[in-house]
Amino acid sequence: MNIKHYTDIPEEAVTKANSIKTTIRWLITKEDGSTRYATRRFEIQPGGEIGIHYHSEEHHIYILEGKCHLIDGNGKKILIRKGDVIYIPSNEKHGYINESSERVAFLCIIPYL
Amino acid sequence: MNIKHYTDIPEEAVTKANSIKTTIRWLITKEDGSTRYATRRFEIQPGGEIGIHYHSEEHHIYILEGKCHLIDGNGKKILIRKGDVIYIPSNEKHGYINESSERVAFLCIIPYL
Repeated sequence: MNIKHYTDIPEEAVTKANSIKTTIRWLITKEDGSTRYATRRFEIQPGGEIGIHYHSEEHHIYILEGKCHLIDGNGKKILIRKGDVIYIPSNEKHGYINESSERVAFLCIIPYL
Repeated sequence: MNIKHYTDIPEEAVTKANSIKTTIRWLITKEDGSTRYATRRFEIQPGGEIGIHYHSEEHHIYILEGKCHLIDGNGKKILIRKGDVIYIPSNEKHGYINESSERVAFLCIIPYL
């Protein structure tokens, strides 16, 4: 078994999908020996966002702290907050915007396709 | 997309592996349309435990709150706490015991094999 604290893992700026003030940590990946799916931790600072995008990887999301809006393919904003669990199917459009005064942090698990 | 709060999902007692004072919520599963892996949330109350066991499903674990001891195949206790990330490979023995005064909660993602 392999134990780390999330802060031990490098924090990288997210540049895809016109992201602003957003970082990612790849917590568990193929490099750990996990070949089926990867667990990542995102943080979006106040005023930050990930633009609407889509891809073939489905998402399992769990909100760890804070709140933000999830944006669906029609541009509709849905408030999501700590303790929320979100499933985004393959190829469904989605984005995030943090209009709150605190960072939002969430886990996002994706398959290796 | 499908959005729920974790408390909306039924909490079930864990009975496998000689578990004590432990519950599980199956947050995202095949029933949501996710066929590759499932995301579950465990809670172990003070004095609770999950006995040492093993299985072919690997684990991605993220500690959401509290602390407990992870027990490896040699019976060694390792303290794990909020923000820790743990990878347990397929067929590696592991257990958990909460000797603290507060509940520990963690996510555990397993593949559908």
